[in-house]
Amino acid sequence: MDDRYEYYRAMVEYWLTGRFSAAHDGADGLREAMRYSLLAGGKRVRPVLCLEFARVCGLDPEDALPAACGIEMLHTYSLIHDDLPCMDDDDERRGRPASHKKFGETTAVLAGDCLQAEAFAAVCEAPVGEAERFRCCRILSYAAGAAGICGGQFLDLGEDPVTAERLTATDERKTAALMAAACAMGAACAGAEEKTVERAWGFGRALGMAFQCRDDLLDGDGFCALLGAEQCQALAETYTKRALTLLNGFHDTAFLRALTTELAGRSN
Amino acid sequence: MDDRYEYYRAMVEYWLTGRFSAAHDGADGLREAMRYSLLAGGKRVRPVLCLEFARVCGLDPEDALPAACGIEMLHTYSLIHDDLPCMDDDDERRGRPASHKKFGETTAVLAGDCLQAEAFAAVCEAPVGEAERFRCCRILSYAAGAAGICGGQFLDLGEDPVTAERLTATDERKTAALMAAACAMGAACAGAEEKTVERAWGFGRALGMAFQCRDDLLDGDGFCALLGAEQCQALAETYTKRALTLLNGFHDTAFLRALTTELAGRSN
Repeated sequence: MDDRYEYYRAMVEYWLTGRFSAAHDGADGLREAMRYSLLAGGKRVRPVLCLEFARVCGLDPEDALPAACGIEMLHTYSLIHDDLPCMDDDDERRGRPASHKKFGETTAVLAGDCLQAEAFAAVCEAPVGEAERFRCCRILSYAAGAAGICGGQFLDLGEDPVTAERLTATDERKTAALMAAACAMGAACAGAEEKTVERAWGFGRALGMAFQCRDDLLDGDGFCALLGAEQCQALAETYTKRALTLLNGFHDTAFLRALTTELAGRSN
Repeated sequence: MDDRYEYYRAMVEYWLTGRFSAAHDGADGLREAMRYSLLAGGKRVRPVLCLEFARVCGLDPEDALPAACGIEMLHTYSLIHDDLPCMDDDDERRGRPASHKKFGETTAVLAGDCLQAEAFAAVCEAPVGEAERFRCCRILSYAAGAAGICGGQFLDLGEDPVTAERLTATDERKTAALMAAACAMGAACAGAEEKTVERAWGFGRALGMAFQCRDDLLDGDGFCALLGAEQCQALAETYTKRALTLLNGFHDTAFLRALTTELAGRSN
């Protein structure tokens, strides 16, 4: 599994690096801030999922690369804004100063705003058909809006009492929706039929929930704080099993199965 | 002209009101903040331009309505973020408290973020072909990103000395790009060929620059402060003339000509 993961990851680093090099158009400071957060050594789980789903559905993964990188750009924007003083107020991200500490709040807000727009622009550049690119835009907009990361962040910051129901609604939007979108967009790029795209979405959502439960176990937050470590672990296993079952509808899934198991059991 | 303008405006109000009514999904507070800024009595110039270009290019304007409203949503997000304390720090917008004064900074940032995503989602819902919707997404992402409003806001807040060149670059991105996108998306919704879409873009850009020069004259800012009122007025007239000339490529343009003349000479 590792070889293919590193190959995909290298593709993503290469594309993003080229995309955000200097353009000397007066807005290089904005581009620098976007690049700083984008090229901070993330795991690139979402674009890897997108590229692999494109491959599994019969497309050369390279043709899904702009769409895969669009998802990573959207994810990075959400991290920049989550770190803002008016949000989670985090000074560090991946061992380096957060965007607003490095560039100031004004530039951090704008870098996030711009990354969201440029994420859609990237998706629009994938060398696949216009109908396929349209479907990717639709999926990404859904995962980015009220039913996705913005709604999830709003719920996360709200004052309502934390119940399992509310936590599930929050995690489904804040974490799982974008993982689901990554998988669905890979299938959509490949021109898969609607029910296949939906199954890819379902897999990504289940994987995202398992991923979040694992996060909670590692941090002692969320479901771990609410239900205790044992039940949180059981929940992670339920979601992992669901994800693996949904893969039965696809061929050549060894990589995705290994990745699912690894992410659900990871230690960082 | 007024009848048709009011008819278009009523369509926009109707669609936006329906779209942002309560959904009782836990994120109603977020939806309320989006609705507050969206339904604050804007002129709706951009969606009106989009609807009229759709009509001029042969489409029932109603089929372009979700795309037109998507542009207004994107415009509204940019106003919410522009008003933030770390940006222009404005406490009022259209005679009411700005979003961050009414709902707090956290919700204002999220409402803006969410409106950008939902703008793309709205465009994806227009009842036209997938290729047409794809083209609209591409146009909107361009106008929203580094070459559009985010790049323009970054330049506007920068510390470089104000020159005519820099002011032009700022206004082209911050103001003119979204007007251009509105016109181009109307044509794209109607399935117009690429050079027609580009001509619509050119018209919208020239109109946007004329609109901004008029703003500068009314406020004593920008080109008016740099060049004086007389030269600023001459610049507005140059852009207006350019816009009117670009309309020669279209049929049935009386409404667009009247609107251009009115916007370039408006007193508020």
